[in-house]
This record gives sequence, structure tokens and C-alpha cells, in this order.
Amino acid sequence: MTDFAKTREFFHLPEGMTYLDGNSLGPLPKTAMDRLRHVAEEEWGTMVIGGWNRAGWMAAPSVLGDRVGGLIGAATGTTVLGDTLSIKVFQAVSAACQLRPDRKVVLSDTGNFPSDLYMADGLMSLLGEGFELRLVNPEDVAEAIGPDIACTLLTEVDYRTGRRHDMAALTKRAHDAGALAVWDLAHSAGALPVDVQATRVDFAVGCTYKYLNGGPGAPAFIYVAPAHIDQIRPTLAGWLGHAAPFDFELDYRAGGGIERMRVGTPPIVQMAALEAALAIWDDVNIEDVRRKSLELGDLFIEEVTKRCPEVTLVTPRSHAERGSHVCFSHPAGYAVMQALIARQVIGDFRAPNILRFGITPLFVGEAEIITAAQTLEDILETKAWDRPDFHQRARVT
Amino acid sequence: MTDFAKTREFFHLPEGMTYLDGNSLGPLPKTAMDRLRHVAEEEWGTMVIGGWNRAGWMAAPSVLGDRVGGLIGAATGTTVLGDTLSIKVFQAVSAACQLRPDRKVVLSDTGNFPSDLYMADGLMSLLGEGFELRLVNPEDVAEAIGPDIACTLLTEVDYRTGRRHDMAALTKRAHDAGALAVWDLAHSAGALPVDVQATRVDFAVGCTYKYLNGGPGAPAFIYVAPAHIDQIRPTLAGWLGHAAPFDFELDYRAGGGIERMRVGTPPIVQMAALEAALAIWDDVNIEDVRRKSLELGDLFIEEVTKRCPEVTLVTPRSHAERGSHVCFSHPAGYAVMQALIARQVIGDFRAPNILRFGITPLFVGEAEIITAAQTLEDILETKAWDRPDFHQRARVT
Repeated sequence: MTDFAKTREFFHLPEGMTYLDGNSLGPLPKTAMDRLRHVAEEEWGTMVIGGWNRAGWMAAPSVLGDRVGGLIGAATGTTVLGDTLSIKVFQAVSAACQLRPDRKVVLSDTGNFPSDLYMADGLMSLLGEGFELRLVNPEDVAEAIGPDIACTLLTEVDYRTGRRHDMAALTKRAHDAGALAVWDLAHSAGALPVDVQATRVDFAVGCTYKYLNGGPGAPAFIYVAPAHIDQIRPTLAGWLGHAAPFDFELDYRAGGGIERMRVGTPPIVQMAALEAALAIWDDVNIEDVRRKSLELGDLFIEEVTKRCPEVTLVTPRSHAERGSHVCFSHPAGYAVMQALIARQVIGDFRAPNILRFGITPLFVGEAEIITAAQTLEDILETKAWDRPDFHQRARVT
Repeated sequence: MTDFAKTREFFHLPEGMTYLDGNSLGPLPKTAMDRLRHVAEEEWGTMVIGGWNRAGWMAAPSVLGDRVGGLIGAATGTTVLGDTLSIKVFQAVSAACQLRPDRKVVLSDTGNFPSDLYMADGLMSLLGEGFELRLVNPEDVAEAIGPDIACTLLTEVDYRTGRRHDMAALTKRAHDAGALAVWDLAHSAGALPVDVQATRVDFAVGCTYKYLNGGPGAPAFIYVAPAHIDQIRPTLAGWLGHAAPFDFELDYRAGGGIERMRVGTPPIVQMAALEAALAIWDDVNIEDVRRKSLELGDLFIEEVTKRCPEVTLVTPRSHAERGSHVCFSHPAGYAVMQALIARQVIGDFRAPNILRFGITPLFVGEAEIITAAQTLEDILETKAWDRPDFHQRARVT
């Protein structure tokens, strides 16, 4: 049984802050600074270029990739870190299209994270005539998977509403239609149990700065099903995905297995923080995290619904249909979130009118849930959000 | 006049090490650790998600991009950081091809860094029939620029030989033929004066972990000439290159100017080290760096040529035709470099037989040059390299 009092101790949380935004950026692990000091002073400072071998830098994307892979049900050697989630989406969709050369449509939905759509669309523009990114509503995806679909590109948990797709069912549906399934696990990895092998997912991608607490700009990951990997000739063919990067051959030869999904020089300093953050998972059972997250989510829904008639629940109540964040809409959503933040209750605003709260049991408990609900109630009752400075449009939220 | 005694003090160099590999990975700036501590504890730890605005994280790729831009003659607002050099090559070549829609050939040379070639080739495979990456010998590039060339993709300084292209002349030649010029400045930025505006370069890309000392895996940069930027619709269309990333629109709209070359979430922790490293340039004149580097390079060539008849100079002697590293070939080059490294003289081996030495005046002076030449002499005279363990093929060099 996961000891959540202990996991909370693992993180530094600012005094007085109720942090319900771990689904956007996880907090600082207390051990991160020591790991950063080590990589800077003991590795870079002492070994300089020698760190690539002696400190294991060159292997780090695979070594840490396997640790992330363990959290999504991936076998050793099938997950690698690098780049950003957008780039990994491009790689996955590009590879999927390569594996289905007679099909020209990538199917996604309007609830997907926009960057996934932009990247897929950019890829379509490169592939040229006839290639198409087709968007349907999230509830219409299953129906839209037909014989012209090369792959689906779906995010399991909607970044805005918290609505959760049925990954197993949609993957099966894709396969039945001869298509491949690419899943974005940005709001899944570290939030809820994922089993890419059991669900027969073809490609999975995600980021490590949300529920995996790797720090701002921590690298992304990509998983490729073993059955596919050797057939892929990466189109983002970087030297560190080459079979022999230091032979400096003029022609690209794909590296063994998942290594070929590496592109350029990995961000070693950045990964040090992630490495520190991943250590917590040795003591955590993801089933416990999910159970607790749903429990706290239910409590939050109950408390807010009871206290705040002005807001509307956007997230499905059904456990099977929701991820690990809970959202409400309010006509003045942006200003309300600014008022909450001013009172140290940190969530996200998502356009056009959504208040988003991440329920992350590693460092959030009942007390935070009640504080957030009470603060929201007070803000709405006193119309504390109705101040001009809370209405200014933020450049970044 | 740059004070090189002072710049040397800026870096931590391991005791007893003669480090001639700053062209592969610059050493640790002494201030980096404090900046890392700040970004972890004072920013991430204290502001958490708020750091994106309050600590300036969101703007960092442009702010630091401008500082790098200043070192290559770029105007403010024309250079941005992000991703890896391989990804930036892809972006630049993709944009260049877009601007020359009636041409299908990208011209490069066999001395280019292989990852540039792999990435361009991957792009060609996406663009499809008729698109071609054409390779010629470095000395044949000018002649090969014809009316079918969409863009040239050249690295100013050859990573292996140190041979330097005439950037101004080849760019003019490209323009005269109606082509665009993409330049890789990996071995130029921070090594020698570059003026992307005066030479009318269309796209420039480079990395920040070599002569800019940003640390292992520090992000890359891209410069786009102002005349082109607004015509480019990025094919790696990431959300942070969108005109309004936080509006989460379903369709991509390119951001203003160079911002559109951003892709995903930038590596904030990694960039903290780079930020520390860039501070040294406030006190450095790049013309002084170049003068000193050539001086030290001449000295090294003289000393090694005199002492070591077994090696052959690979780098051009002419100042105009060489960059900031000096290379020699030796039939047992790999083993010789291992023997040098065992004696704390750090250079690089580059296949098949090249000993590469980076001459970086910010922290290398005459003493290091003499030590390196003497050590090489001794190793060759005593055949100290002729030990079995020096012959093992390294996975990474």
C-alpha cells in the first residue's frame, strides 16, 4: 500500500500554497537539487566530454526511458526519452503512416491537445496530396475509424475536460479496421494505470513534466510496439538514432530497436532533475494513486457542487470515463482562476471558460481538496473575481 | 581587448587536465551551479507553474536566442533557441524548400556533419518523388549550385578537418542561382566572427554546447532572415510556435516572426546552465577570440609538425580556410587519442584516423598547446599508444 504521507514528503511545496496543478507542472522533488549539483559538478565539471561514457549520459535516454516505460506497461527496451512531446507525436504518426502506405488519413478528435493536431497537420503538408488529418468529435471517434484510416492519434485523457477515452476498445477498433493506434499519454503516465502491451497500443508518447514531476521542459517519451520498431525508417533521422553514430557514415542506418527514435544530443542537465523525480515510483503503486485520485476527485466534485451552484461540472462523473483532473466551467472562468491563484489555490484556466484542477495524490490530500472548494465558494459568493485585474487576458496561464 | 586570463577564471577545469575539446563540449562555467540552484529552488520550487510567467521561462528561448544571435550578427528577434541541432536543420531545410516550391534538390557536401545529411534525407523521403539530397565534395560545392537547387545545406567549418567554407561567396553563389543558403554554425558560433546579415545568409542553425559552453545537451538555435520569416508555415508546427498557444485553437496559425520556429515546451533547467555560460560574452570580443585561436593553432601546427613526423596535418594552414580546431591524421589515430586521454590531454578521435584538437582561447593558452604537443610527441616516440586497451573500439568517443 502506497504511503502518501511519505510521497508528500518527497516534494517541496511552497508554504501556504494549495497546488492543484501537478497535471501541468509537477513540483520540485527535494532530491532534485542534489542530483543537479552532482551532474554539474561531479560529472560535467569533472569529466567534461568524458561524461558521455563515464557518467552514462549517452545511455540516459534509454535507461530513464525504461523507467518511464515501466509505468505504462512497456517492456524493457521499448521506450526512449528525448525532444518534446510535439516532436514525438510527429515521429509516431510519421512511422504509423509509413507502416500503412496505402492509407492517407490520420484520424483525431477535437478534444485532442492542439499541438498534436498541429504537428500531424504539418506532417500531412509534407506528405502532400491526398494526405489528411481528419477531426471528429471525441464521442464519434469509434464510428469514424474506417478502411481509409492509417492511424488514430488520440490523447487518452482530454486536457480540457478530463474525459477519458477507452484506450483498449479504440485500439481494438483501429486494428479491426487495419489501422494503427497512436496514443498521447500526457495526462495518463503517472496518473493512472496504463498497459500499452495489454491494450496492444502501437505507439505511445507523453511528457514527463506533469504527473512524472520531471521539471519545466523535461523531455518527452516514445514507446513503439516491438512488432513495428524494426520496420520503421525514422523520418526525423538524427545521428543518435543511427546504428553507429560515431562512425559518421554518410548514409543513415537505423539504430537497433527503440534507439532509432532518438534524434539529437539529449538534455543531460534537464534529465538529472527527471531522474531524481522518477525515484519516487519505486515506493508507489499506480493502482493506489488511481484509487486515491478518484476518491479525492469525487470529494472535490461533491464539495464544489454543493458549495458553488454557479459552476458546471465538465468532467464525467463516471470513474471509467475520467482521468485525474476535474474541471468546472464558469462564464468568468479566467477571472475566477486568477482570484483563486491570488489566494494561493493553484489550478489552470483553459479557454474558453474552464477551471481545471489536477488531483495528484502524491502530494495532494483531503485538506487541499477542502481548502480549494472553500476558497472557490468564497470567491464566488463574494464575487471576489469581479475585479478588473482578474479580467486581464493572460499571455500564459 | 579581451582579457583571456579573466575568461579562463570563468570556467572550472579539472586539475591536471589539458582540455582541447571545447569544440565538442565546453567546460562548466563556475556560475552555472548557482544559476541551476536558482532555477530549481527559487523558481520551480517556489513559483511552480507560475514560473512560466513570473520567472520568464516562456520568453527564455527568445531572450537567450537574441544573445546567441548577437554572436552571429543577427538582429534582435531573428534567432530563437530550442530542440536539438538536428531538429533545427530539419526546420530550416523544410522552410527553404517551401520558399522554392519549383525546385527539388538540396545540395550538401560529404564533409557535412552526418546528422545534417540524415535529417535532410529524412525530409526528402517525406516530400516524396523527385526530391533529392545531392552530395558533392566540399571543394565542388560552388560548381554544383545550379538552377535545380532549392537550397544549399552546408556547415561552415568541417567537424572533421577544420576546413572552412567561404560563407559569403557560397551564399552569393546560391542566391545568384536562385537558391537559398542554410548554414550550420555548430563549429562557428563562439569560435569565429560570423555575420549572418552581412553575408545575407537565409537560415543559420547551430548548437550551444560547444564553443558557447552551455552544457551537455544544451538547446540548439535557429536564425531566419527577416525577409523570409513571415512567409514560412512551419512543418514542425508545435504549439509554442502558434500565434496564440494558450487559445488552444484547433488550427495552426504561425506565431509572429521567429517565434514560429519554436516547437514544444523549452528545457528550462537545461537553459539555466546556458544562461550562466552566455554571460562571459559580455566581456569578450569575438575578433580577439579568433585572432588568439589562429595564433595558438599556428603554434600547435608548428610544434606538432616539428615534433611528430608520424602525423599528417589535415587542417588547412591558411587562416581564411580553417576554423577553430586543428586535426592530424595517424594510422592508429584511435589508439593515439586514447593514449593522450589517458595522460589527461583531451581531444577527440574522428573516424577513420583523425586526431582533433579544439583551440578555444577562452580557457586554452600557450601552456596547454605545448603540453599537448609534448605529450603527443612522447606517446608517438615511445609507442605508448601501442597497448591493446588503447585499440578497443569505443562506443562513444
